[in-house]
Amino acid sequence: MTELFKNHIERFTPITEEEFSDVAAFFQRQAVPKKANLLNEGEVCKYHYFVLSGCLRKYFVTEKGMEQTTDFAIENWWMTDLMAYERRLPTEFYIQAVEPSDVLRIDQASQEKLLLAFPKMERYFRFVYQRAYAASQMRIKYLYDFSKEEIYQHLTSHFPEFVQRVPQQLIASFLGFTPEYLSEIRKKRRS
Amino acid sequence: MTELFKNHIERFTPITEEEFSDVAAFFQRQAVPKKANLLNEGEVCKYHYFVLSGCLRKYFVTEKGMEQTTDFAIENWWMTDLMAYERRLPTEFYIQAVEPSDVLRIDQASQEKLLLAFPKMERYFRFVYQRAYAASQMRIKYLYDFSKEEIYQHLTSHFPEFVQRVPQQLIASFLGFTPEYLSEIRKKRRS
Repeated sequence: MTELFKNHIERFTPITEEEFSDVAAFFQRQAVPKKANLLNEGEVCKYHYFVLSGCLRKYFVTEKGMEQTTDFAIENWWMTDLMAYERRLPTEFYIQAVEPSDVLRIDQASQEKLLLAFPKMERYFRFVYQRAYAASQMRIKYLYDFSKEEIYQHLTSHFPEFVQRVPQQLIASFLGFTPEYLSEIRKKRRS
Repeated sequence: MTELFKNHIERFTPITEEEFSDVAAFFQRQAVPKKANLLNEGEVCKYHYFVLSGCLRKYFVTEKGMEQTTDFAIENWWMTDLMAYERRLPTEFYIQAVEPSDVLRIDQASQEKLLLAFPKMERYFRFVYQRAYAASQMRIKYLYDFSKEEIYQHLTSHFPEFVQRVPQQLIASFLGFTPEYLSEIRKKRRS
C-alpha cells in the first residue's frame, strides 16, 4: 500500500527502493475509522497526513454552529492545517475521516529532519505545495466569480466520481448549501 | 537592490555571494511604470515575478465587467498565475503595477533549470509555496467565515500599513465592495 506513496514521489523525483525505505521510516501508518477525527479545534496541529486509501475532510464550525467543509483529501493527497502545523499552534479546524481511511502521518520535526536528510524530498514537497497553491489560487477566483450553483456545476463536470463518492450532505457543507437546497439543484439538473 | 532577494533566500537557506551571483543570472530585472500591465487575460503566462520595490496586483474581469482584485504583492513577495505559468497556458488574470515597481522575473524553463542546478533553491521555493499555500488556506476560511466588512476589519487590524498604502478603490476591488460602500464603512469606523 505504501507503494502508492512511492509512486507519488516518483511523479516528481526518482527514488530507489533503498532510499524509499529510509524515507518511509519517518512516517507512521494509521488506520482511521469512518467519522473518527484526526484533529479537533483547539488542539495543536501535530501531523501532516498523506492518504493511502479512503477520504478525509477538513472543516471548521461557524459562529452559527454549522460545519463548513473547506477541503477533501482522497488517495495521493496531503492534508493538514498548514499554518498551525508549521508553527505548532492550536488549530481552528477539524480533520475527519469521511470513509474508513488508511493514512501516513509525519510530525513537523520529523518532516524537517526528512528534508535535511533527503534533499530530493525538498523537490517533492516543493511540487506538492506548488500544485496545491496553484489550485488554491484558482479556487479563490471561483469563490469570487462563481455563484454557489456554478461551483456545484463545475464540481460535477470536473470531478464527477468525487461528487458520486462523497455523501451529499458533505458536498452541501463544502458549497455552503443546506442539504435541501443541494437536493433541489440536483432535481433541477436531472429534469 | 537585488540584495533584498539574497536576504529573502537567506531566510530559508544559506547562500554564498558566488552562488547568489550564479542564481541571479537566471533572472531579468524589469522596471514597471505605475498602471502598466505585466500580464493580460488570454496571454500565455510566461513569468514569475519577485517584487524588489513597489506593488503589483492580480485581478480578473468578471462577467459584469468589474475588476476583481485577488492578490497584492509588495516587496519580498512572488506573483504569477501559478497554474498557467507551470503549464504555459493562457491566463484568466491580469497583473498590474499599483505603484512604479522594480521586479525580478524568471520564465518557467529557466526556473526549472535553476532548480536542477541549485538544489538549495528547491528548499527556498518549497518554503515560498508552503507559506503562500498556508496563507491561502486561511484566506479560504475567511472567505467562508467572515462577512466582507469583517474581512476589511481583519485587513486594517493585521495589515494597517498596507491598507494605508494601496489606493482605496483597489482595497474595495479586493473585498468585492463598491468604493462608495467602503467609504461608508470607513466613516462608520471613524465615528
